[in-house]
Amino acid sequence: MRATVMFGAGDVRIESVPDASIIEPTDAVVTVTRACICGSDLWPYQKMEQSENGRLMGHEAIGIVEAVGADVRTIKAGDLVVMPFAFSDGTCVFCRAGLHTSCIHGGFFGTPEVAGAQAEAVRIPLADGTLFVLPTGKDDALMPSLLTLSDVMGTGHHAAVIARVGPGKTAAVVGDGAVGLCAVIAARRLGAEQIIILGRHPDRIALAREFGATDVVSERGAEAVERVRELTAGFGVHSVLECVGTEQSMHTAISIARPGGAVGRVGVPQEQTIPGSEPAFYNNVMVGGGHAPVRAYIEELLPDVLEGKINPGRVFDRTAGLDQVPDGYRAMNQREAIKVMVKP
Amino acid sequence: MRATVMFGAGDVRIESVPDASIIEPTDAVVTVTRACICGSDLWPYQKMEQSENGRLMGHEAIGIVEAVGADVRTIKAGDLVVMPFAFSDGTCVFCRAGLHTSCIHGGFFGTPEVAGAQAEAVRIPLADGTLFVLPTGKDDALMPSLLTLSDVMGTGHHAAVIARVGPGKTAAVVGDGAVGLCAVIAARRLGAEQIIILGRHPDRIALAREFGATDVVSERGAEAVERVRELTAGFGVHSVLECVGTEQSMHTAISIARPGGAVGRVGVPQEQTIPGSEPAFYNNVMVGGGHAPVRAYIEELLPDVLEGKINPGRVFDRTAGLDQVPDGYRAMNQREAIKVMVKP
Repeated sequence: MRATVMFGAGDVRIESVPDASIIEPTDAVVTVTRACICGSDLWPYQKMEQSENGRLMGHEAIGIVEAVGADVRTIKAGDLVVMPFAFSDGTCVFCRAGLHTSCIHGGFFGTPEVAGAQAEAVRIPLADGTLFVLPTGKDDALMPSLLTLSDVMGTGHHAAVIARVGPGKTAAVVGDGAVGLCAVIAARRLGAEQIIILGRHPDRIALAREFGATDVVSERGAEAVERVRELTAGFGVHSVLECVGTEQSMHTAISIARPGGAVGRVGVPQEQTIPGSEPAFYNNVMVGGGHAPVRAYIEELLPDVLEGKINPGRVFDRTAGLDQVPDGYRAMNQREAIKVMVKP
Repeated sequence: MRATVMFGAGDVRIESVPDASIIEPTDAVVTVTRACICGSDLWPYQKMEQSENGRLMGHEAIGIVEAVGADVRTIKAGDLVVMPFAFSDGTCVFCRAGLHTSCIHGGFFGTPEVAGAQAEAVRIPLADGTLFVLPTGKDDALMPSLLTLSDVMGTGHHAAVIARVGPGKTAAVVGDGAVGLCAVIAARRLGAEQIIILGRHPDRIALAREFGATDVVSERGAEAVERVRELTAGFGVHSVLECVGTEQSMHTAISIARPGGAVGRVGVPQEQTIPGSEPAFYNNVMVGGGHAPVRAYIEELLPDVLEGKINPGRVFDRTAGLDQVPDGYRAMNQREAIKVMVKP
């Protein structure tokens, strides 16, 4: 089959690889009908050391179950399913607590260990726990929004949950990528009264406003902090949704939280330390978050997608066949595209 | 009057200073009947640059109100009061939210700006909001435990609240100083099932066990992490109460939290960054805490002290007159004493 392989920074190719197949009896094989390129794929795209074998990329997908292993009980061939970016058994102590990304037997797609979904098909470990069966047809008009349930919408929601967004509160979203835009949707959905987006790309900011952002801060660093304070009576916001992951973005996030506020971080951290230890301490600002347990959030978010209450699929502004995936990486990396949907 | 003045690292003297007096109409003057030396006083004791004027030390006290300013409404001369380590108006948006340490008009005792309580008397700004009137006599046998409500017991409680200690959960307390010992009391009080103390001073560990610690880890660094994992089925604990504030202690704290767990940090941070950004992210470990709003906690903790359900006053293992305060600093710094009570 054909699949996307990253061999090093800037080096993404479509290659012929062995077909996805059942290895463990708890596996399924899914024919991918939709996949994505993720903002987090851009970190290896910028930094990965050259490798001979490369890495099969992609951790977001919708597809049709082609085959299931002997021990799969709830998933069957023909099901249309969402594949969350992490696989999980659904039964361990952490899955039962709703933290599927810490599943004792789980792991992540598109890693050196497990092949990715920017491909014609993908092997799904622990299919019963991992996959979520959709009640729609494979060409439903809602497909782009449903596809975001595999990562970015659930991730934006996680930032909002951890940052304790609630009715009447003030929120700020750091970053205007696809996750940041979904975080705006999530903040609005959970009742935030004021939603400040920190970003500087006019097309993304326009979308953020449509999603519910009430204010825009395009400055960076100390000037951004100053602007947010001006917009919040000098206090900062109750909830900061950190959707970038750099040292500067984290420092800004902590600095714009009001005393007693919370930072929900979902941008994959690029540093070993969290800056702002002292301001966080002196202001009792909580810093939480991490990989979003999107599997746990699908049930909550799906009805709003099906009813059209939220439209996270609007973050896709480009569609690519498999052959166009390498150019999709380039386009996202150069900020020509917000997020690329892949139709293998 | 006589007061404790720190002139530099290791240089603490008892000096004659101008009497504490009413400056603002919202002030009170309190004759100090009990004060303390705090673990956090040891940071300047180890690091403070030599200064000509010095700093009047002490931020924990019980005393009798001597005089009040013209605008003081609820506090009157003769009241026996607890002085929390921060002063606060009790009415601003943060005080109303229970975060008195972020009071818009507040501040801290024993700082370069506001004189301290290791003295015969102390000026209390914003007396109505700051002071808490005790329902006991000044020589009550419970005085040591009541005195801990000015800082260490409220601070240990804050660590437990932020770390989300609750019935049936597992907790670890990093640090066996007076705050760490009070954190053990707080974790027990809030229902933790297993309480692991990380510390290595036999006298303190013995007290921790009496307060409710179920396990002791005397290793440090990676070995401590390993031991805590062994004690918790490999997972780590739900709640970590960080009561030290160094880089190593924070790193240990994050490393022993189980996925989805929380670190409540109350040790004054000695670094600009929080270590362990990646493990915190990959395990969805929350890091929160800061200066404890002890003023907010007195009402909750006082009944348990009055009924003898908790005895945090046992952390005092030495009593000093003012003249003995410099030696009290030395003794605490050399770990000869856990915590020194001062009777001016």
